[in-house]
Amino acid sequence: MSELYASIDLGGTNIKCVFADAEGTVAASDAIPTASHEGPDGVLFRIGSLVERMIERAGIRPRALGMGVPGLVDLKRGVTRFLPNLATQWRDVPVRDILSPRLGCPVYLLNDVRTATLGELVFGHGRRVTSFVFFAIGTGIGGGIVIDGKLRLGPLGAAGELGHQTVIPDGPVCGCGSRGCMETLISGPALSGVGVRLVRSGLAPKLHDIVGGDLNLVTPETMAAAANKGDGKVREEILRAAEYLAIGIGNMITALHPDMVVLGGGVVQMGDLLLNRVRESLRERVHMVPVDDVPIELSLLADQAGALGGIALAMKRGLIED
Amino acid sequence: MSELYASIDLGGTNIKCVFADAEGTVAASDAIPTASHEGPDGVLFRIGSLVERMIERAGIRPRALGMGVPGLVDLKRGVTRFLPNLATQWRDVPVRDILSPRLGCPVYLLNDVRTATLGELVFGHGRRVTSFVFFAIGTGIGGGIVIDGKLRLGPLGAAGELGHQTVIPDGPVCGCGSRGCMETLISGPALSGVGVRLVRSGLAPKLHDIVGGDLNLVTPETMAAAANKGDGKVREEILRAAEYLAIGIGNMITALHPDMVVLGGGVVQMGDLLLNRVRESLRERVHMVPVDDVPIELSLLADQAGALGGIALAMKRGLIED
Repeated sequence: MSELYASIDLGGTNIKCVFADAEGTVAASDAIPTASHEGPDGVLFRIGSLVERMIERAGIRPRALGMGVPGLVDLKRGVTRFLPNLATQWRDVPVRDILSPRLGCPVYLLNDVRTATLGELVFGHGRRVTSFVFFAIGTGIGGGIVIDGKLRLGPLGAAGELGHQTVIPDGPVCGCGSRGCMETLISGPALSGVGVRLVRSGLAPKLHDIVGGDLNLVTPETMAAAANKGDGKVREEILRAAEYLAIGIGNMITALHPDMVVLGGGVVQMGDLLLNRVRESLRERVHMVPVDDVPIELSLLADQAGALGGIALAMKRGLIED
Repeated sequence: MSELYASIDLGGTNIKCVFADAEGTVAASDAIPTASHEGPDGVLFRIGSLVERMIERAGIRPRALGMGVPGLVDLKRGVTRFLPNLATQWRDVPVRDILSPRLGCPVYLLNDVRTATLGELVFGHGRRVTSFVFFAIGTGIGGGIVIDGKLRLGPLGAAGELGHQTVIPDGPVCGCGSRGCMETLISGPALSGVGVRLVRSGLAPKLHDIVGGDLNLVTPETMAAAANKGDGKVREEILRAAEYLAIGIGNMITALHPDMVVLGGGVVQMGDLLLNRVRESLRERVHMVPVDDVPIELSLLADQAGALGGIALAMKRGLIED
């Protein structure tokens, strides 16, 4: 049997574990609930048990484990600094030193979206291009920047928070503490909020039908469906969101002239209605580099980006070494 | 005598030539008018004569010459692609192949603001930090990005056009073809335009006095002086400009988490009124990285950045080699 690497994707709801080889071929995967109310000790104990169970089943110990976490980490020491969406916020939890002895292999930590970017670099579009910008557009908007085959991290793994570019100086209040961040305008919740307003105002009859009057079902996907069925106002708002997205993407193209822009996350599943307007708007906004030569592509890994990013992290590929 | 390198800074008005050693100590400098109406052949002939004259005087031939030009270049071939502000626009002029045989040394071409960034990297703040973002704020706003000691160029040397980030989506029309670029809001001309409006509207009595009623003398510097003497509206507009500047700087800090932000160009000579508000505004905008740990510093090279950048380019320092 070939050598395997392990990844842990620590999310707010679930913890996913994958074993894969150096080509990114998944050999095994499993998941457990995060149950973060148990605190770091409880959660890390269950992560250890999860990986041990998979080692037993696979009959092989992984060479290393890469773990993506939702927040800031001390990269060198493998310590979490601040995971805002988990109970207790995991300040200064020595994850590496807790897990590594138990599992008998090296353990590396990295912010989850940077981990996903690493996955795209090693197993996705990064196989073809050496410099790209990655936007993960879901509940929040994260990202990552790859220059000359290396992921830009900064000292805390915090570089690449592309959703917190200012797009409207006096725009909506953002969770980060600023205003008018890209995330306040084109994240899943931002779009859904617009959709709910239109339904409640009686301006989105198709969307109303599609969700059967249940506002819980208003999402970017149902909005795209409604727009395609003739809801003009929904369509207009999606096109406007596309223009905001193009501003954030365009800023990065102008600053970095990457070979490619890669989009991941649920929102970009809205499809051509969104993406065609993004491309059109980029042509209007970006004039300092030949923008048509910078393809805007969907992630090749989709929802596997985090898991495979953890594998890339375990292999220490695409990282600037100390 | 130690080895020398040469630089040419090709501007719209003047051509400056500097000879310096590998420490950036200037041994000789000279300048001639650009007179770009003569076209590339005439201008390049006079550049050749200028350098030859300096070689004769110095009694030493430079090891290489680095040339900063105002526009896009083909880095590998040393050919200008598009210099929008020079007569005939210099499309596909083989500058390297014209100058190099005549001068008997290698000749390298690069965009002028990227060249200035290289100067800051090799001879300025880059001696202390390895990753920084440079903004040159003058008639236009250019910039450069240095990651891990390397200048980010992209295939055309066009990466780093930081003045063309969108700051106000529906803002003023920009020369680049977009709207609301940072350059339309806080370049020298943008600020001067605001100052002229205030003088003409009778809202800037101190500024009116300082320039003796001559609108030709309204500049960021005279505006800063007027604000400090009590022109409240001028002061307000400078603070507002500082907030726009902070948006552009903040986007780059959030995206790249650099060690430092370096500011050059005439506008930043406005001093503390501008810079203190920039720092304050950054604290309001940037929450994803510890922004107080990212110093905002003035260029150490000031108006020598271009000349010394050419020297760094001649030495091929801080560039990603092919």
